[in-house]
Formats: sequence, structure tokens, C-alpha cells
Amino acid sequence: MSQTAYRTHHATEVTEGLVGERVTLAGWVDRRRDHGGVAFVDLRDSSGLVQVVINDEEMARPLRSEFVIRVVGAVRLRPEGNENEHLATGRVEVVAEGIEVLAKSDALPFQVSTALENESENKLPGEDVRLKYRYLDLRRPSMQRNIRLRSDMARAARRALDEMGFTEVETPTMIKSTPEGARDFLVPARLVPGSWYALPQSPQLLKQLLMVSGVERYYQVARCYRDEDFRADRQPEFTQLDMEMAFVDQEDVIAMAEKVIAAIWKTAGYDVQLPIRRITWQEAMDKYGTDKPDLRFGNELIELTDYFKDTPFRVFQAPYVGAVLFKGGASTPRRQFDAWQEWAKQRGAKGLAYVQFTEDGELKGPVAKNLSEQERAGLKQAVGAEDGDAVFFAAGPRTASQNLLGAVRVELAERAGLLRPDEFAFTWVVDFPLFKSTDEEDDDVAVGHSKWTSMHHPFTMPSADWIDRFDQDPEHAMSDSYDIVCNGEEMGGGSVRIHRDDIQDRVLDVLGISKEEADEKFGFLLEAFKYGAPPHAGIALGWDRTVQILAGADNIREVIAFPKAGGGRDPLTGAPAPISDEQRAETGVDYDPDEDE
Amino acid sequence: MSQTAYRTHHATEVTEGLVGERVTLAGWVDRRRDHGGVAFVDLRDSSGLVQVVINDEEMARPLRSEFVIRVVGAVRLRPEGNENEHLATGRVEVVAEGIEVLAKSDALPFQVSTALENESENKLPGEDVRLKYRYLDLRRPSMQRNIRLRSDMARAARRALDEMGFTEVETPTMIKSTPEGARDFLVPARLVPGSWYALPQSPQLLKQLLMVSGVERYYQVARCYRDEDFRADRQPEFTQLDMEMAFVDQEDVIAMAEKVIAAIWKTAGYDVQLPIRRITWQEAMDKYGTDKPDLRFGNELIELTDYFKDTPFRVFQAPYVGAVLFKGGASTPRRQFDAWQEWAKQRGAKGLAYVQFTEDGELKGPVAKNLSEQERAGLKQAVGAEDGDAVFFAAGPRTASQNLLGAVRVELAERAGLLRPDEFAFTWVVDFPLFKSTDEEDDDVAVGHSKWTSMHHPFTMPSADWIDRFDQDPEHAMSDSYDIVCNGEEMGGGSVRIHRDDIQDRVLDVLGISKEEADEKFGFLLEAFKYGAPPHAGIALGWDRTVQILAGADNIREVIAFPKAGGGRDPLTGAPAPISDEQRAETGVDYDPDEDE
Repeated sequence: MSQTAYRTHHATEVTEGLVGERVTLAGWVDRRRDHGGVAFVDLRDSSGLVQVVINDEEMARPLRSEFVIRVVGAVRLRPEGNENEHLATGRVEVVAEGIEVLAKSDALPFQVSTALENESENKLPGEDVRLKYRYLDLRRPSMQRNIRLRSDMARAARRALDEMGFTEVETPTMIKSTPEGARDFLVPARLVPGSWYALPQSPQLLKQLLMVSGVERYYQVARCYRDEDFRADRQPEFTQLDMEMAFVDQEDVIAMAEKVIAAIWKTAGYDVQLPIRRITWQEAMDKYGTDKPDLRFGNELIELTDYFKDTPFRVFQAPYVGAVLFKGGASTPRRQFDAWQEWAKQRGAKGLAYVQFTEDGELKGPVAKNLSEQERAGLKQAVGAEDGDAVFFAAGPRTASQNLLGAVRVELAERAGLLRPDEFAFTWVVDFPLFKSTDEEDDDVAVGHSKWTSMHHPFTMPSADWIDRFDQDPEHAMSDSYDIVCNGEEMGGGSVRIHRDDIQDRVLDVLGISKEEADEKFGFLLEAFKYGAPPHAGIALGWDRTVQILAGADNIREVIAFPKAGGGRDPLTGAPAPISDEQRAETGVDYDPDEDE
Repeated sequence: MSQTAYRTHHATEVTEGLVGERVTLAGWVDRRRDHGGVAFVDLRDSSGLVQVVINDEEMARPLRSEFVIRVVGAVRLRPEGNENEHLATGRVEVVAEGIEVLAKSDALPFQVSTALENESENKLPGEDVRLKYRYLDLRRPSMQRNIRLRSDMARAARRALDEMGFTEVETPTMIKSTPEGARDFLVPARLVPGSWYALPQSPQLLKQLLMVSGVERYYQVARCYRDEDFRADRQPEFTQLDMEMAFVDQEDVIAMAEKVIAAIWKTAGYDVQLPIRRITWQEAMDKYGTDKPDLRFGNELIELTDYFKDTPFRVFQAPYVGAVLFKGGASTPRRQFDAWQEWAKQRGAKGLAYVQFTEDGELKGPVAKNLSEQERAGLKQAVGAEDGDAVFFAAGPRTASQNLLGAVRVELAERAGLLRPDEFAFTWVVDFPLFKSTDEEDDDVAVGHSKWTSMHHPFTMPSADWIDRFDQDPEHAMSDSYDIVCNGEEMGGGSVRIHRDDIQDRVLDVLGISKEEADEKFGFLLEAFKYGAPPHAGIALGWDRTVQILAGADNIREVIAFPKAGGGRDPLTGAPAPISDEQRAETGVDYDPDEDE
């Protein structure tokens, strides 16, 4: 596989078996060291490093970091004592007989040498510089690993799906706008002036059409697009591993997805324990204050609404009071508790009430004096604390308070070093509500025009016992949907889909979408349901996020070859960019039908 | 794999081994026949058909074509004499004990029953109707086969590439416009008003950046976009299997691509004979009048320029005179030869000269009388004709005349039934010129502003012996590029790329692209070449075309799940479509910097 016009071997194939043989290698000058007339060059290629010894000063002189060279030389064992056990090729070296410079390199904007990898990453420049010179940044072994892991993971997922009889189908990306909770990127249609294509937020409607088409098991590694305001860890274009099945229920999809996830993790040597545990959406909210709980650690939220039902403390006279334990936190200095107040305010909370159970059995902290004697007496037991612990409280509307405590819970674990990136705690979150109130704050664009919008999307099937009455009680109606969560991140989610036009009509009605609007926006799907649509269900994994989790990377940009920076800018190519007047005229965006003949 | 909440088996799993057992099946009513109180339903699912017998009239009554049903029943052998040997399940049938209608179907706009498959496809409606109801059209077994073949082919290609150490990398699709010979689709950037992204015509520059990044073997099944005027067999978005390698030459890429092609064809049971033959571009033009010759048959063009160098016939006093033999064509009626004239005129030619060698040794036809005695006497031998044959001539500029004769050659073979879709004649076309004149008629948008434009694209490496002088003689300069052709279709092509900025600068100079323009359009690539770019080369297969060829389909729309119709319209979803004023305002296309604060 290695042999090409430029080389006989890859660097890491040069091992003891080749001692005495002549090899031709090609790659980059990773590092160069000089020792009294002898130069040592670490030659780097996609496989790794090998040491090249150059005894000829003339030959060595021109070589600089990141020059591309071709080396012909003989393999020999390194002199005793000079072995490098950290390197696959650490027992040998190549004595250069000839070196050809295939390409030079200017002085580098930042160092990419492998030798720096194990040192602090502090030497890396800011992300904008990394992205501007992404082709250098990607030469670093940690980025090479991420790129290759991503490829390996896709291969594993595809093979698992192949084995389960899936067909890969490519769906179009210049489509009609689909109402899915975000803004579409739009493409003017030159040949139909005044008309536009939308880039897909997901292949949702198209994969449902494939089910109606009799393609019973579909998957696609699909590019998706969302024109959202800048959020730290989002990209305007992203990838999802998209899967859909006909003649299945929720259990079938979950069993299938677990096989795929296990195959993906196996790539990196991890065995995922199947079946993956499940918790209900309600339980996740109550115990972890989020619908994507991090289960690498415990420390569940403690509900105290009942405990404080007769409290004299005005702040705790609220629809919800809850707490989270700060193990060993009693001795935390006052200024750190003040910093926690700031932290909470930055998340939109008014503050973060707390008490301390001191080592000598006292109850301290600003909240303590506001409580009744009885509340003070039973509190330690109620929250499961011991002397030396502290407790944070949140009181107010249920969801917002739980969200705050859930964030405190994760932040405490983070600061305690409990969040190991190489430990993976999966869970299914099931039994989601069908709708959510449009009053709730959310960055998403609500689908429809009523006080209810879809929790997932408008094509989600109500659960069996709600099919006949979800429209009479939208607040409590439940759905057949499920999210897969790992380490506090939503890796993916899916649902059983509506396959009957009568149910779809009623859901759209709850969302305040009129017949006319529905017909205009996705009438083709409603029409398709009239011609024998099978029951179907599916799931999609956010692929960038999934790779990030397994790679243990800080953010999704670390696992994307050429990601966008903030605001959708690409520091490398300069996209987006102005266009010429001629290009603009051709797009047809300035088309005026009145000017037409 | 088959067992789900809705079924125990797929239809074609119901074979003799299951006789006596109860099965649950789910699928569509493919066809229904009634015989004196007993109804027979062909149940169709993604695997195929099985016959269901319904003895209960009540149970059978509601069932109509394309209803989605779930059947519980017992498997039994069909009564002797009733077996259907054409069907995998033809020896058994399922006696229905219960049938549940999962979804009904309205009356169909056209029939999709499997039973129609082997009859004439004349029953199919026009393509716009097929595309409007694509979800029905895709239920037809021939379309299911195409969709599945496409998936199988991708799997085979990926596995071959995996074995050769390739890494799959996803490159962005919201990029900076790349000059590649067609118009870009453009996407307004809401967050940077007045700026636009371009959708990629190919990942060309990005994959070259990956080579500079040290990803030595890259592939991607990449979505690409070209905003071209409507041409019959093109799509605004299309797929290519995109591959690039570092530290390789043309021979390495060709050897790799042959393995991939052989693996793909193997999917459908064909063994591709390796190595694939090669012809030079010049030879292809001279012998077949095209750079994508169909080698399923011979009948090469015959050059007669020299033969007619002293001709008295004005028409043949031309820079090029050539002929193609019409075997057995002497007895063709005059009105058919007239139709050939029309055919040639529709292709932009003035006409199509011909002579007939009659069975009794005469030379006939309008041209004959214009020739000298000597020319008439030697003609039969010069063109290799026998009595009973005819010969078509073209005279004029070399390329245009060869193109015409090449088209005649294919048309003759087509009419003679020599173009079998299940026979595959591959060839590499190599040794392409580096440039072509911008005077030549072409639908592509010329890159640059001089009298020369790139034959492939501006990043193509001149061949070794032209590197030092291609700019002194652009007309004759050759390149290291190669196309893979099958059955007269260009399946793909590639080249060694320029990896040195000095050579790239000189190529851009020939194309009339100024330093400023180059920097603005792809300065990032030229910049990348300054930091150690390895020699690299690649190839891409037009994936829709490749699938079409192996599927033996008439056009690429037959192998695309949801293709666009003429003008980029989607009859199914109605895309492209007008957008709301609010959406338009958000795109930022009407942004006026002067109005800004």
C-alpha cells in the first residue's frame, strides 16, 4: 500500500526487519538537530516519524522545518543507548545517501512539530490563526488523530448499518424550505428568477418520503444547514448520521441505534454496555435539571418544595424549591461563594442561595437565618448532607430552577475533576412531551403560530394513549420520541413519525398551522400519506458532536477539517465574500416581475 | 434482521422451510385477484413478493392496491400446478388468519405493481408525473434496484479505498467561489450582509489543502453544485467520488482508481479486466472523433486529408477530410440519407456528404461525381469498404469534423443495435493538452481572460517535458491528466496537481489571471503552497454517471432518488419557490452599506 512513485515505505514501516536494506521515504522535516557535523532529521509522514541521519553537511544545510523531502538511505540499528522507546521506529534510523527537496517552506506562523505534541498546548496560537493556517494546524498529530478517528467511526457505523440491511440514499440539498425550528439558508434560483431553494436543516421530510417509497431501511451521512445566530459550539453546516426504518416501533429503532453506537465506540476500543440505560424526560428534569444529564457522576437534585411548603422565607415560597449538594463545600471562602453568585447571574438567575454545614455542626450562610427553627433542624437530613458540606438552592418556576441546579451540579463535578473525557455514560431519555409552550425562552424559531410548538418536530407521533386526545390537552400529551445522551451532551434523537394524514392534520392544528399554510409548506408529504404510508420511525446522530465526544475534544471544531469561526466566517478562504455585480445580476435576486415582458 | 414490531419475516424469507409455521408479514398490496370467494393478494415489501390467500370475503373486501397491511397467517405449499417458478416464494403461500390495514391508499395516479415490471414500460406516465409522485415511482422494482445498486456501489468503493489506507474527510460546502468552469450557486450570508458563500463545484481546492495538511490519502462522496443552463442529462447538484493522494504520480492514481472501479463493477457481478487499456487524447480524437470514445465496437474514423490533397472537389479542399464506414449502407433509401442530412444539421454541421458502393461495383451518391477519376478508383480501398457499404464524409476544421464523424460512428452503432448496456468497454484517455483555445465553442465558462483556458482546470500540472516551456507554447503544451471513459461516457477524470507556487503563477499568467485576481480568488491555496506542499494527484468519478452506466439506465435521473426536472424544478416539492418578505429581509441581499450607521 505504501509504495508509490515517491517512496518505498511509510516512515513507521521502517523497523528492525529492514535493517541493512535501502529505503526511499518522503515526508516533512518534523525537526532537525545538529551534533558536531551530523544532522538528525525526524521525517514525518501520515504514519508517524522516523529518524534520518545525515553525515554530509552540504546535504543537511538547506533543510528547514516543514520542508517536503525525499530521502534515499540505508536502514541501520541505532547505536546502543540511543534508542527511543516512545517511537515505533525508535530502534532504527536511516542513513541518508541522497535527499531531494520536493518543496520548501517559508518560516512558519506557528510550530507544528510532533515533538511539541506532548508538551503543553499553550504554544498553540489563537483559534483564528489556527483556522487561517488550517493546513498547518492539521499536520499536528492530535488533529490527524481526530480526522482519522472521524473516518474510522463513519466506517464502523456504515458497516453496522450494512449488516442490518440498510440502504444508503443521497437526498437532495437544494430543496423546499422545511419547518424545523431554525432559519433556512437560501439559494436564489437563477433559472426561476424570484424563486429560491432552501438548504436542508435535515433530510426529515425526504427520509419520510423514502419510507413511503418502500425503502424500508435508509441511512445517510447527511450534510445539514441552519442559519442561526452565532453560538459558541455550533456550525452553519453540520453533519448528521441519519437513519429511518419502516414497519418498526420505538424499541426497534433503539435496538438498532445501540448496535450502531456500540460499533462506533468499538473503533476506539471501548465496549458499550448494552442495553443502554433509560430515564424518562421527567426523571431527567427532576434528578438532573436537564434533558441531557451527565451520568458520569451522581449528586442528584433534591426537591424541597414540600419541605419548605410552610416556610417563612419569602424566596422559598415558590412553586419549586430544590437543592444540590456541594460535598465538602462548607469551608469554601466567602469570595468563592460570591463568585458562584456571579456565575449564576451570568446564566440569567437572580443569584444562588446556599448554606454551609460547618465541621462543628453549625448551620451557616446567608439563607440560614431566614429559615424556621424546624427547617434548620431537619435540613441536613433532608438534603443528605454531612458536616463539612454545603448546599446550593434554587427556588422559583420549576423548569428554570431545575435548569440552574442542573448546571450547578455539572459545574461542581467539573471543578472536582469528575468529568473524565475517556469515560462514557450513555442514557436514553424517553417519554418526552409532544408539545412545549411557546412562552418558554428558547433560541429556536417556533414552528407554527399558537401557544404550543413541537418539542421535537411536527412529524412526531403522539404516544399510543394520547393519539385520540392529544389535541384536547396539549400540555400533558406525550410522544413516542427518544434522545440518546452521552456525558451530558445530546448525541442524537428521534421519534416514531406520524404516517397518517388525519393525525398529522390534528397536530398541525394544535400548532396553529392552517390547512393552506401546511399545503404550501409541506403539502407534498401530506399528499404522499394518502397513497399507503407505512408506520415508520427513525433517529439521527449529530455526527460532529458524536465524534467530539469519542475524541474527547473540547469543541466540535476540533473534529471538523475546515470549520467556520464565529459569525460563519472562514479565516482560511475569506468566505463569505462580496460578489461581482455580474454575479449578482445572474442570481436573479433583483428580478422584478413588473419589468418583465 | 427482519423481525420488528410489525413482522416476523420479510416476504422473500417465506420459503418451504417455514411450511406449517405462522408468520406475520407487513407490506403493500401489490396486486389482488379474486377467484370464486377466494382472494389472492401479492404482498410486496422491500425484499419482494409473497402470495397471501384470503378465504374470508369480509377480510378481503377492503383491500386495494398499495394499501399497507399486516398479515398473520400460516405458510403452506401451493397446490400442485400452482407454483410460480419466477418467484423466490413461488412454491408457498400464506393463508391469512388476520389482516390489519395499517394505511389506505387513494386511487393511484399510475400503477406501480411488480406485475407490470416485465411488461413494456410504456404504461409509465411522463417523467414530470413520475417525479411529482416520486414516492410511488420509487416503489417500482426497477427503481428499487437502482437505488440499492447505488448504495452497494458506494459500499464497494469505500471498502476498496479503506483497504488502500484512505481517510474519508468531509469538506465544507459553504465556501469561497472557486474558478472551475461553471457558474456557482450562491448563498447570502445573513450574518455578514452583502457577502455570499458559494456552493462548491467540486472539493478541488479543499482536497489540495488536505494534501498540504498531510492527509496523504483522502476520499469523499462529495455533493457538488453547478448553476448551468438546462442540459438534458445534468443536475444542478450532483455527486462525485472524490479521491486525492500525496507523494504519487499519474501511474499511482491510475492503479488505485482501477482497483476502485473493479470493486464497484464486481458488486454487479462483472470482472473488469485490469489494467484498463489506454489511448492518448490525440488518438481518441483521430480514431473516434471524441475524447470519450465508445469502444464497445470498432469502425474507427478514416483520415483522408492526404488522400484528397489534390482534389478538384471544393468541399474537400479543407484542413481535414475524414470518413466513417456505414457497413451495408449502400442500399439505404434516399429519404434516409436525407434524414441523416437533417440529423447532421441539428448538430450544427452543414450536412453529411456520402457515397455508396453498390452491390454491382458502382460508386453512387451526390459526392461521387465531384471526385477525380483517380479518387473514385482508389476510394473503396482507402476507406476499407466493400460492395454494399456506404461511407459518410466530413471536411473542414479538424476538431469539428472529427466530432461530427465521431457522432455518426456512434449513431450508426446505435441503429445497428451494437450498444449493449450490459457490456462495458473501459479506457483511459491520457496525454491531454494543458490548455485549449477560448475560441472553441463550449458551454463552459472559460477560466481566465486570455485566448487560452484550461483543458481540465487551472491546477493541472504540465507534463514533465513541458514544465519549463509551457508558457512559451501554450497551444502544444501537454499535461499530466487522465480521464476514465466507459461506453462513450466520461466516468471521471483527474490530474497531477501543481504543488509549487512558481508553476501555478505561470499557469495563471497564461490564463490571463492577474496576481491581484488570483490572490482574491484563491490566494489561500497559493499561500498554502509556501509552507511545504507535497506532490499530489487525484481523480474524481462522476457518481451519478457511474451508477447510470452500471445500472444500464437511460439517464442519471433514473439513479437519483429525488432528481430535479428541467430548469432545476422539483415537481414533487415545488422547489424552488418564492420566499416571504421577512425571509428576504433576513438574507441580507438588500443590504445597503450606505444605510448603515
